[in-house]
Amino acid sequence: MNIEERLLKGDKRACARLITMLESNDMEAVEILKRLYKNTGNAYVIGVTGPPGAGKSTLTDKLVKELRKKDKKVGIIAIDPTSPFSGGAILGDRIRMNDLSLDKNVFIRSMGTRGSLGGMSRATWGAVKVLDIFGCDYIFIETVGVGQSEVDIVKTADTVLMVMVPNLGDDIQAIKAGIMEIADVFAINKSDLDGADKTKLEVEMNLDLNENTDYRPPVVKVSAAKNKDIDVLLEKIIEHRRHLEETNKLEERRIRNNKMELLKMVEEDLMSLILDKAVKEDLLERLARDVTLRKTDPYTAKDEILKLVVNE
Amino acid sequence: MNIEERLLKGDKRACARLITMLESNDMEAVEILKRLYKNTGNAYVIGVTGPPGAGKSTLTDKLVKELRKKDKKVGIIAIDPTSPFSGGAILGDRIRMNDLSLDKNVFIRSMGTRGSLGGMSRATWGAVKVLDIFGCDYIFIETVGVGQSEVDIVKTADTVLMVMVPNLGDDIQAIKAGIMEIADVFAINKSDLDGADKTKLEVEMNLDLNENTDYRPPVVKVSAAKNKDIDVLLEKIIEHRRHLEETNKLEERRIRNNKMELLKMVEEDLMSLILDKAVKEDLLERLARDVTLRKTDPYTAKDEILKLVVNE
Repeated sequence: MNIEERLLKGDKRACARLITMLESNDMEAVEILKRLYKNTGNAYVIGVTGPPGAGKSTLTDKLVKELRKKDKKVGIIAIDPTSPFSGGAILGDRIRMNDLSLDKNVFIRSMGTRGSLGGMSRATWGAVKVLDIFGCDYIFIETVGVGQSEVDIVKTADTVLMVMVPNLGDDIQAIKAGIMEIADVFAINKSDLDGADKTKLEVEMNLDLNENTDYRPPVVKVSAAKNKDIDVLLEKIIEHRRHLEETNKLEERRIRNNKMELLKMVEEDLMSLILDKAVKEDLLERLARDVTLRKTDPYTAKDEILKLVVNE
Repeated sequence: MNIEERLLKGDKRACARLITMLESNDMEAVEILKRLYKNTGNAYVIGVTGPPGAGKSTLTDKLVKELRKKDKKVGIIAIDPTSPFSGGAILGDRIRMNDLSLDKNVFIRSMGTRGSLGGMSRATWGAVKVLDIFGCDYIFIETVGVGQSEVDIVKTADTVLMVMVPNLGDDIQAIKAGIMEIADVFAINKSDLDGADKTKLEVEMNLDLNENTDYRPPVVKVSAAKNKDIDVLLEKIIEHRRHLEETNKLEERRIRNNKMELLKMVEEDLMSLILDKAVKEDLLERLARDVTLRKTDPYTAKDEILKLVVNE
């Protein structure tokens, strides 16, 4: 059996192999996805985000276990911040979810980010398609960190779960505010800590300011570590899904997400093209040197590079 | 006097006006920078980064005050994470550094990030040029947050100062690891906290793993709030500068940084071009819909968009 057939039969190793191929930008993997794209559409994608230290991984694990009780097939893609210099994933060797990873209906994958010129989002979206074809009912995209590229990925989910935690500093509150607007469901994790009610209240007050009247994101206190109220949280996620489906907003949202995905892929392709040409012709090096020595200015220099690829 | 002349005379309002123009992508501002680019080159740029809650702003303020004692003219650009939906800056109305902002030799500016398709880095780099022409001896670029786009900006500084703080969680440690390699100087802030020595030791151990033998980033314990050892930290920053200058690495580094800046600007220009064309011709909407309805696959669709701008 080739890799396509094996993937369609739900072979985990074929799944893993294909994602690895996507990570290394293997064109054969893209060809396979082109052919199998019609087999996607079953999976529902949940993006999990929140400030560092909020307990996103543990909470995701618990939600997955809850879904397994309902006999759902689940995938987890954990976005792993990459060292900007070495290019390797930072948490790559992190050992997690041993009991889950033995389950043949759970697929777990850590994916490294690749810097802004790389293909983090493309590989992630590719992996979502692979897991969809693999037969997952639910796919979690979990992001460590709060950066723009992580936000860009997580907001292409069907439901965005924002995980918060009491007693974080001001900076974190500010960053939180930046992604609060993309959240569909809020979880206040570590609900047994003092301050959990206060954090919940703050989120609720923030939501009061929102104009959107037809859907108000619920705020659920949970304790992932103590396995408390995970079922309540899952129910809220499913309610959000139901809301999207009943109001025809799921399709609308997926069209919006596909727009973002298309633009991002185009951006990445253009950059590879530019890099290829500008490096090959030594133009980039020469211009950067001229800018540094003030023989030209950066705006004139970038126009020169642009001419390499753009017609007219 | 026109804005150019006023900027050259060190007029703070001209400075502010020009940066606002750059933020709104005003081509006149770009033309002014093209003409005045030859007047840049005096300023030394310090990037300040670190995990949320590390006290970067307070520490930057204290370093600025130290530089003022040496009669240096200083600029501060604080990168402010933008709400991905509303597009507004989150900390924009944050009141800080009142005593500094009254000083005519200190220019402070908060700049909002603009999402991945926007011009955060371009506007920031433009602002650095404006402050350089304005006559600053030192320019601080301070980033709240730890995302890739923030890292991309901060690593184009001449010296990267990484601010850490004891007792952060594992997630934060991991993110920290991702930017540790771009740091030239480490500050362990809140040195009076238990755990400061342990954090310093961890950083030192991490540095021991580094192969680079001709420069080892110093690790300095400070307390910004208590104004302790700020002079020691500044001296280490100046030592790094001296190291770069004496080994001829400053120019090398600036060439590398200009490469990144050129590529980023090219990327942004290409994306505006694509967006313009694809939106105008309604192609993006149609293709995103077709992908959602599985009439085409995303890889074929993005190739169609690419053809809009790329020759051959």
